[in-house]
Amino acid sequence: MTNAPWAQALLTPRHVALVGVSDDPAKTSGRPLQFLRRAGFGGKVWPVNPARATVQGETAYARLADLPAVPDHVFVLTGADRALDTLEDCVALGVPVVTMLAAGFAEAGARGAAAQARLAGIMARASGRVRLLGPSSIGIVNLHHNLVLTANAAFAEPDLPRGGVFVASHSGSLIGALVSRGKRKGLGFAGLVSVGGEADLSLGAICMAALDDPAVTSFALFLESLRHADDLRRFALEAARRGKPVAAYKLGRSEAAAELAVSHTGALAGDDAVADVFLRDCGIARVDSFEALLEVMPLLAQVSPAQALRAGRVGVVSTTGGGAAMAVDRMALRGVDVVTPSDATRAKLSAAGVDPGDGRIVDLTLAGTRYDVMKSALDVLRAAPEFDMVLATVGSSARFNPELAVQPALDSHGQPGSPLGVFLVPDAPEAARLLAGAGVPMFQTPETCADAVAAALQRRSPRPPKAVAAPATPRPLSEAEAYARLAAHGVPAAPHLVLDADAPVPDLPFAYPVVAKVLDPVLPHKSDAGGVVLNIADAEALAQAMAQIRAHVARAMPGTVVRRILVQQMARGLGEVLLGLHRNPEVGPVVVLAAGGVFTEIYRDSAMRLAPVDVATAREMIDELKITRILQGYRGGARGDLAALAETVAAFSRLAGDATHPVAGAEVNPLLVMPEGQGVLAVDAVMEAEP
Amino acid sequence: MTNAPWAQALLTPRHVALVGVSDDPAKTSGRPLQFLRRAGFGGKVWPVNPARATVQGETAYARLADLPAVPDHVFVLTGADRALDTLEDCVALGVPVVTMLAAGFAEAGARGAAAQARLAGIMARASGRVRLLGPSSIGIVNLHHNLVLTANAAFAEPDLPRGGVFVASHSGSLIGALVSRGKRKGLGFAGLVSVGGEADLSLGAICMAALDDPAVTSFALFLESLRHADDLRRFALEAARRGKPVAAYKLGRSEAAAELAVSHTGALAGDDAVADVFLRDCGIARVDSFEALLEVMPLLAQVSPAQALRAGRVGVVSTTGGGAAMAVDRMALRGVDVVTPSDATRAKLSAAGVDPGDGRIVDLTLAGTRYDVMKSALDVLRAAPEFDMVLATVGSSARFNPELAVQPALDSHGQPGSPLGVFLVPDAPEAARLLAGAGVPMFQTPETCADAVAAALQRRSPRPPKAVAAPATPRPLSEAEAYARLAAHGVPAAPHLVLDADAPVPDLPFAYPVVAKVLDPVLPHKSDAGGVVLNIADAEALAQAMAQIRAHVARAMPGTVVRRILVQQMARGLGEVLLGLHRNPEVGPVVVLAAGGVFTEIYRDSAMRLAPVDVATAREMIDELKITRILQGYRGGARGDLAALAETVAAFSRLAGDATHPVAGAEVNPLLVMPEGQGVLAVDAVMEAEP
Repeated sequence: MTNAPWAQALLTPRHVALVGVSDDPAKTSGRPLQFLRRAGFGGKVWPVNPARATVQGETAYARLADLPAVPDHVFVLTGADRALDTLEDCVALGVPVVTMLAAGFAEAGARGAAAQARLAGIMARASGRVRLLGPSSIGIVNLHHNLVLTANAAFAEPDLPRGGVFVASHSGSLIGALVSRGKRKGLGFAGLVSVGGEADLSLGAICMAALDDPAVTSFALFLESLRHADDLRRFALEAARRGKPVAAYKLGRSEAAAELAVSHTGALAGDDAVADVFLRDCGIARVDSFEALLEVMPLLAQVSPAQALRAGRVGVVSTTGGGAAMAVDRMALRGVDVVTPSDATRAKLSAAGVDPGDGRIVDLTLAGTRYDVMKSALDVLRAAPEFDMVLATVGSSARFNPELAVQPALDSHGQPGSPLGVFLVPDAPEAARLLAGAGVPMFQTPETCADAVAAALQRRSPRPPKAVAAPATPRPLSEAEAYARLAAHGVPAAPHLVLDADAPVPDLPFAYPVVAKVLDPVLPHKSDAGGVVLNIADAEALAQAMAQIRAHVARAMPGTVVRRILVQQMARGLGEVLLGLHRNPEVGPVVVLAAGGVFTEIYRDSAMRLAPVDVATAREMIDELKITRILQGYRGGARGDLAALAETVAAFSRLAGDATHPVAGAEVNPLLVMPEGQGVLAVDAVMEAEP
Repeated sequence: MTNAPWAQALLTPRHVALVGVSDDPAKTSGRPLQFLRRAGFGGKVWPVNPARATVQGETAYARLADLPAVPDHVFVLTGADRALDTLEDCVALGVPVVTMLAAGFAEAGARGAAAQARLAGIMARASGRVRLLGPSSIGIVNLHHNLVLTANAAFAEPDLPRGGVFVASHSGSLIGALVSRGKRKGLGFAGLVSVGGEADLSLGAICMAALDDPAVTSFALFLESLRHADDLRRFALEAARRGKPVAAYKLGRSEAAAELAVSHTGALAGDDAVADVFLRDCGIARVDSFEALLEVMPLLAQVSPAQALRAGRVGVVSTTGGGAAMAVDRMALRGVDVVTPSDATRAKLSAAGVDPGDGRIVDLTLAGTRYDVMKSALDVLRAAPEFDMVLATVGSSARFNPELAVQPALDSHGQPGSPLGVFLVPDAPEAARLLAGAGVPMFQTPETCADAVAAALQRRSPRPPKAVAAPATPRPLSEAEAYARLAAHGVPAAPHLVLDADAPVPDLPFAYPVVAKVLDPVLPHKSDAGGVVLNIADAEALAQAMAQIRAHVARAMPGTVVRRILVQQMARGLGEVLLGLHRNPEVGPVVVLAAGGVFTEIYRDSAMRLAPVDVATAREMIDELKITRILQGYRGGARGDLAALAETVAAFSRLAGDATHPVAGAEVNPLLVMPEGQGVLAVDAVMEAEP
């Protein structure tokens, strides 16, 4: 995947052509030439503009074919129609990479359909010899290569901040916002790319190519969707393997908030919840706030991903009680544990001349802000085993006297110990620059502090599930077929038997009472059609029930003849849950464990993972569900068999990996959870699968 | 309350004495003299220090009694013991206001008890002639009076930003953070006060005094608790009357997040949820993020409080699609409606030369950023009736070319129309200063933008409930007594009758089946003691049930003799809810409507208000509850009598205003909601009240 020939042309081109470049450097289509020259780009830059002999004082060429050589990267700044003409020229010339600014393709809906179709046709004919960044890409920047190949006005910025962060964004304009905000925070960038419509090169593929650049130490992604999730996943796994952390900000939180009136598994696996699960299982740290996307980067460089879900344990030392309280409050809301120093740590603090106080944080407010006290406190806390990281919250001195409480953080950071971050409570630009310059994670608000800390500490190692592709021609299985497939994977169902609807009732291999259900894969709403009779006490009642079902279904669905009836032993559990397997069009199969009935629908009480999952992950899902507290001996009640539930969730999720009979989707609702030691039982199931 | 003699001495003192002032201006106790001199305070400043003839080059006095006149404000900078000595001197001299820096009083627990007792004794003897700010107050600042009477190092700041915001804070150190952050945002302050331990003057009382200052146009509160909530409420109501808006940031969100394992009404009314309700019902705009406490202030000046709860309708115009998407996403999460322009508004936009596009926001990204287009868009949207406010999100041009998209906002702001705010997507300090200087609400992150917009648009007019004081000597009522009191207020119960436990069963005035319950106010857990029998079919079964109850209770609670039994008709509703009345020690009575059973406890599905409430407010509470969706014809089910429920919630809440028989607390659990038109029925109730 990496070291592809296009990667060099994309990220470190030697010769660049600018097609449609304007003579006016203030215009969008005039900026790239100005920016490249100002940045001192070392390769050739060829303006192409058939209407002018010179552009911005440089010789312009009328056509790409007139250039002295074939450029390895063409930035097309014209409108869509002329851009497509140029793309065809590039294919003819064998230009390895074309970046296209024009909009008006797939994203424009019906209005862009013709352009999109022409684009697709050209790319198909190019068959991989020409790769496209865009359309709707505002360009690409590689600061270590002096490549400022962008029309984004933000790159008029003098002294663009260089560093190790590679930004890839679905939004072109936000790259500018990140540059200016990063500059204020003292954070530098290796490269920034606006991936646009991803008609060819996807965000994940571009980041994968950037992984090879030793100047790139981490990745910050601005995502509008999970388009091309497979590429993103491959990149994330490779980035984790190479120890280059990835953070993401993703739009679309509010869709989850709005999606309230849903019932089926598919909708439960709402877009943003899927994104949460996908990013987490890919080992990508998702932040909630825009500024935290920048503030989290230095911290990620220091915090190793966890092997399993964890809250994160933080020790806090502060020169301002109120400032620390804000950060602690926010971190607690994000599930981060602010941990009280152990007795051993307190003793070491006292021995080092630091009053540990008697609270959850080491509050130096009353001690006054002094270098030696802060330095000692940081050194002791960073050596203490009870913390995953140490946070220093620094008050007024950060603004006026960085030597008092900020310098100790700079000095301690250089020594071994757990990761250290600093929350600057006042506006303290000089302290921020000092910290950022030394690579010390630095947070400017309590909210971004908590967001970044939670995202970094709760980031886990990638957990790539091994799913198989969806079946090509799935069909709905009958309930009995579904039970058989579930049983093959280890999901037990209540005892059942399929009877001929017209034959006499045989002896049953299980005890009454039973339930009788019409068995017909194309009748998913059995009850609505009168196809279910509960609480059948004996064989005589069963015969009556079967006759009743035949009659009811015939009345409800004229023309339907009931041929088979599923008879199942009645069972009652301590609780009921729903198990669903759903193939998300972007990220693939996800498994959902949810509370049943109104709990699912009104309280959206569910847990989701990419499928399949192992038993440990299934246990995490059980712990995430609120309703399972009732099965954990809540208020002195009986305990449910949660061990069996965890095994069953994992077994059910393995349907996603069944290569012999691929499953499109499945739902067990309800799955009864029996008392401890008595297992779980499916008492209804639907499935769509390859026969 | 206002125009109190202490108010002048607190906020605009003529002569100030600094007791214990240090010769070293860098020391905490040396700062106030330096700050006052640097600010050019116009009154006398008398250093008092028995150990020195001069302090910072000025003549020092040994004792307060040696001063040429009695100061009207003494700032005591010594430790606690000497500070108390000084306080006694101030009482002897008749100093109207003393501000005390020392800590080590009530907040220090047992260690501070002696000092606290001595402090209380002195203040009692002063009987109001001397008023105290503190202890643990870092001081008070009145910028329009050049009074920088504080030991907070942050006031070493040159060019302290003057304006109309009065800050009152439980945390002294955070005042410094607010000043530096306000300065960066171009926001100015009239005054800032660190209220400390509020041993005498409370935060609310101080703000009430500041209301009279015409330079004070709004209030920003940093709250650690709701101590002295009555004063805060009185201030908030008066501030609303005078049209001076109040915003608050309150610590303690995470307590609510942590408080999961609770069941009774009191704990349901968790501290932070109570604070939410209290602040909202007082008409105070609560923000969630620290920076939004500042960013919301200019917006509050322009948005009138709503008469009832509202979401807020916002029109958005943007020069950056990605930037707008971030803000819209966040606002939607906060319940703010981003409203699509009406057809009429779209037509006006087109006529003004602005392409309205076909989306929810007016996106000018492709049009390029031009003054005339942005100005026209703002003017049209601000005149449109469908918006409560208009938000402009401005991209890169905000940093480099404020004349393009920021200047139109400045110009439009000066014209009539709905309130206008600007979200600056890049770091754009110059644009921020321009906007803030003109009083245009300005937001620097999508998160603070959404927070401030939601807090301002959702702020409602104060709804001061008329509750009475808690009873002095409440006792638990029996279930029958509770029903009688509930009935008197209009809360219906299922038909019931009290029987002599030893007498024969009479004819009942209602039909079987019935439930029999031991009637004993000191036996709240009737079921646990075997004191309840359900589903009694006839008189014979009732006699048996009564005998069983006598026997079970006697066995479960030896020595208890069952004398009376409550017999109640069995009833079944479409749904069950819980109604609770709880007296919060800080804010007084609150009424809670909650889902019953596990819903309450696991999902914390509840709505709360200060009690009593009217029917319209009760309807709001019903709408807030998730479980009531089931009673609104959910999935084709029957509709519950929510009209009766609203009447009953209001009736129940009136227990808080019962002056004849004051109620300490009450709970109806469950209250059955019957089908539409059939009302609601209490089937269990407990109450503590004045007999």
